[in-house]
Amino acid sequence: MKKIVFVTTNENKVKELRELAGTKINVEHLNYDYPELQLDETEAVARESANWVRERGVVKEPFFLEDSGLFVRALNGFPGPFSAFVAEKIGNEGILKLLAGKEGEERRATFKTVVAFCESPSPETAPLLFVGTAEGKIAEKPRGEGGFGYDPIFEFEEGAGTSRTFAEMSRAEKNAVSHRGRAFGKLLDYLVDVEPSSRTKNRT
Amino acid sequence: MKKIVFVTTNENKVKELRELAGTKINVEHLNYDYPELQLDETEAVARESANWVRERGVVKEPFFLEDSGLFVRALNGFPGPFSAFVAEKIGNEGILKLLAGKEGEERRATFKTVVAFCESPSPETAPLLFVGTAEGKIAEKPRGEGGFGYDPIFEFEEGAGTSRTFAEMSRAEKNAVSHRGRAFGKLLDYLVDVEPSSRTKNRT
Repeated sequence: MKKIVFVTTNENKVKELRELAGTKINVEHLNYDYPELQLDETEAVARESANWVRERGVVKEPFFLEDSGLFVRALNGFPGPFSAFVAEKIGNEGILKLLAGKEGEERRATFKTVVAFCESPSPETAPLLFVGTAEGKIAEKPRGEGGFGYDPIFEFEEGAGTSRTFAEMSRAEKNAVSHRGRAFGKLLDYLVDVEPSSRTKNRT
Repeated sequence: MKKIVFVTTNENKVKELRELAGTKINVEHLNYDYPELQLDETEAVARESANWVRERGVVKEPFFLEDSGLFVRALNGFPGPFSAFVAEKIGNEGILKLLAGKEGEERRATFKTVVAFCESPSPETAPLLFVGTAEGKIAEKPRGEGGFGYDPIFEFEEGAGTSRTFAEMSRAEKNAVSHRGRAFGKLLDYLVDVEPSSRTKNRT
């Protein structure tokens, strides 16, 4: 079974990935706090962090890390790549205050995850990026007990139907549609596709 | 006359420093956009950026850069080291919304600047840090036309007397009491003190 190292200090994200990976990929968790740059693009933050980890030889095996952000349209994309810091400082309550008086479409937001995957320790190979997004709205107030971070105020809304927050979904439900689930899914598809033994096994 | 290179993309900061430096120090401006790490401490952000600039040999002469932040007590120190990004995304209006309903002491805030000075290109020498702070409160609404960034909502308040915002002061008035003026002042004192020719000149 192919093995991959997930570099993160966030246990919740590891749980999400392991649930998606099932028995297809062996996900090893490396609890390592790499630096993140202050950049406006999630792609650039993830890529530069992955380069940093690789250049220092922190991991010898294929590894990846991810950067996620919540981009609220009426706030010019705030909190964006600084979502973790903003969550810690002003939390969901702060985001709701900033959106006071905004209604309907004005509350549109996008959740985005960029996975940066380094297959080889060679510095010549740029990290592969896998991007996942989820569209929704910022709720009027937090709802639900599941998930973490901004999940209680993010109403997933793609297509018709009632809109639940990510915190009102089970982990499996959220994983199936979330930004991170989608980005992880692309990474896992790539890994399974390029793994010769898995391919053979799947075909027999 | 001693020469020093100020690495920044912010022209306003260069103007502030040149006014303080007068004819004592020759301040050269290098408009160069170095990376900043996502860290919670202004000191760490400035130090790591200075190390980055030095390691890459961007400047061959003694140089410095600075990092500044506004730390609002009721917001757990938000926006802190991410002040520039937050200003761009939600601006003064956003900070005022987050403080809606907060009164008096609840609006306390500290402005802080850390100057990181690299005297020698040697990687063994850690950057010297000069810290300046200014105490005040977040105003109920923006006032004044001067300054930049959060200046219109920062009421300087140290000791008794009326409290004007930094944007209601002339550049010279603001420089005399501001976080950046104080940090720059410490740097300039250091440079003048360690400059043999200046010292001799001052003593004759």
